[in-house]
Amino acid sequence: MKNREAEQNKQVTFNKVKSSRNDPLPSWNDGQAKQAILDFIKKVTDPRNAQFVPTEGRIAVFDNDGTLWTEQPCYTQMAFLLDRIEDLAPQHPEWKEEQPFKALLERDLKTALSGGLKEISEMIMVTHAGMTTTEFDKLVMEWISKALHPTFGKLYSECVFLPMLEVLEYFKSNGFRNYIVSGGGIEFIRPWSKAIYGIPPSQVIGSSIKTQYKVVDGNPQLQRLPEINFIDDKDGKPVGIFSNIGQQPVVAFGNSDGDIQMLEWVTSREPSLGIIIKHDDAQREWSYTKETLQGKLDQALIMAPDKNWIITSMKNDWKTIFPFID
Amino acid sequence: MKNREAEQNKQVTFNKVKSSRNDPLPSWNDGQAKQAILDFIKKVTDPRNAQFVPTEGRIAVFDNDGTLWTEQPCYTQMAFLLDRIEDLAPQHPEWKEEQPFKALLERDLKTALSGGLKEISEMIMVTHAGMTTTEFDKLVMEWISKALHPTFGKLYSECVFLPMLEVLEYFKSNGFRNYIVSGGGIEFIRPWSKAIYGIPPSQVIGSSIKTQYKVVDGNPQLQRLPEINFIDDKDGKPVGIFSNIGQQPVVAFGNSDGDIQMLEWVTSREPSLGIIIKHDDAQREWSYTKETLQGKLDQALIMAPDKNWIITSMKNDWKTIFPFID
Repeated sequence: MKNREAEQNKQVTFNKVKSSRNDPLPSWNDGQAKQAILDFIKKVTDPRNAQFVPTEGRIAVFDNDGTLWTEQPCYTQMAFLLDRIEDLAPQHPEWKEEQPFKALLERDLKTALSGGLKEISEMIMVTHAGMTTTEFDKLVMEWISKALHPTFGKLYSECVFLPMLEVLEYFKSNGFRNYIVSGGGIEFIRPWSKAIYGIPPSQVIGSSIKTQYKVVDGNPQLQRLPEINFIDDKDGKPVGIFSNIGQQPVVAFGNSDGDIQMLEWVTSREPSLGIIIKHDDAQREWSYTKETLQGKLDQALIMAPDKNWIITSMKNDWKTIFPFID
Repeated sequence: MKNREAEQNKQVTFNKVKSSRNDPLPSWNDGQAKQAILDFIKKVTDPRNAQFVPTEGRIAVFDNDGTLWTEQPCYTQMAFLLDRIEDLAPQHPEWKEEQPFKALLERDLKTALSGGLKEISEMIMVTHAGMTTTEFDKLVMEWISKALHPTFGKLYSECVFLPMLEVLEYFKSNGFRNYIVSGGGIEFIRPWSKAIYGIPPSQVIGSSIKTQYKVVDGNPQLQRLPEINFIDDKDGKPVGIFSNIGQQPVVAFGNSDGDIQMLEWVTSREPSLGIIIKHDDAQREWSYTKETLQGKLDQALIMAPDKNWIITSMKNDWKTIFPFID
């Protein structure tokens, strides 16, 4: 049997964490954020505590882009899309004159994305549909096993946040099921989520396009159709979570306004833990709160104090950011 | 924290199986079907066997109605729907004259279902939508903890197939994750699947209506909308499985033509096991293959020999059918 698991482990780097029983979060500086995580795990796993949560209820959800790995200078899936456009360009000479493809070929994202939803949808369909799920899986794995991050010159699979790998491992070892809940494409993440984050494909929730079951020359396959199925962002996140899991999680990590509804829903019960990763480290990663970009705070950051969401400053709370820098 | 798990265990009967290491399937008679199951588990769990499947790949999918519990004299969810209609009738005096509601109130299913898709959809929406997911969960649990099967006078949760409970337990103890893959409503099954089958809500795949996230008076909730989201039947079963799990299972159990595509997809790779439950026991359950009803075999039964799907005769292969009859 062709085993996806085995394939994954061959092709992408698994970033090992250096946690210990003494300090499960060695890449975190002491402070409110680290303490909140440690305290939460302590209380929900202690059967004598009134806020004990049995293992069936230990579900943690994590946004991906900007929460588990870097989303700068552009979403990783956008880099994949740009490379797909380049690969497909020889079969589409008309793209040299046609938007949004002309702009994509010139790597001018601003123009490419300025066309509105119809153009963005077209970009996704041309690069992500019109093949079987198995073929798409293969395209993603081939790409992610060699594509390099433009700033760090490392594999994208290495541009993950070491403190968050520690969190995933810490939660898992305490009986939690970790789910990725991403606005990105579910089938873009599933092929490598186990190898990179230790999260199996069944624990990935994301945006999707429609698929269709068809038997071709006697071979059953799932074909990826050029039609949006579900957008797992904002209001869509609680819907996607409940649809996939059928339960309300007790922990949510996010970093942007797309995560507000997920955080709000998860933290509407007790016990629960909501954490926002704040990108405020221009030196080691990027600083791009809207505070600096547009003169105002992100909505999620404004809501945080009132909602008891813990703000994690990458600059102050994280000793190390990437696994490749000690 | 309000814990669904705890709730379940209080309200519905868990049917304990009497499996042992010597005989994991004591309710099965010796024969081809039992042997096929035992042989399959033996080979895929043996690391020295060429057909070994690592635990990540051990996924088994089970149709629900007619495969895990009886679907006669009508689908259990239809009985729930009829009771909901009766409960709601006082608020809808117009139903006395309006189809399909008039027929439903007279428990005349033939007329009620004769109206076509629009009427069937209307019946579902009126009884299953217009409330939050939490409220619907409560309605289902209240109903299933007291509604009695009309023929056996037992709780529906007791009208499960003991040989299949043994299969679920046997697979689980061999590292398999069991999934329900039902044409029925996902949120009708999830509230009790753990208590009755040992299958957690996240391992239930089914048909669904759309839900919407909304904050009402400061309380985040998911509202059930009167709109079909996904039909998990026939072609929809492989699509639903891949969407939820992201992997191709190695085992499929079904009993009707709605399970053909799922069986076909799952058994298109090796190793795999496809089993069809044949309802041929008029004495202890029902005999309703189309062979008897329409002078022809079900399509799934016709395809079985060519596809190497194992036909399980309830009459010959099952020593006991229901847990309440020894």
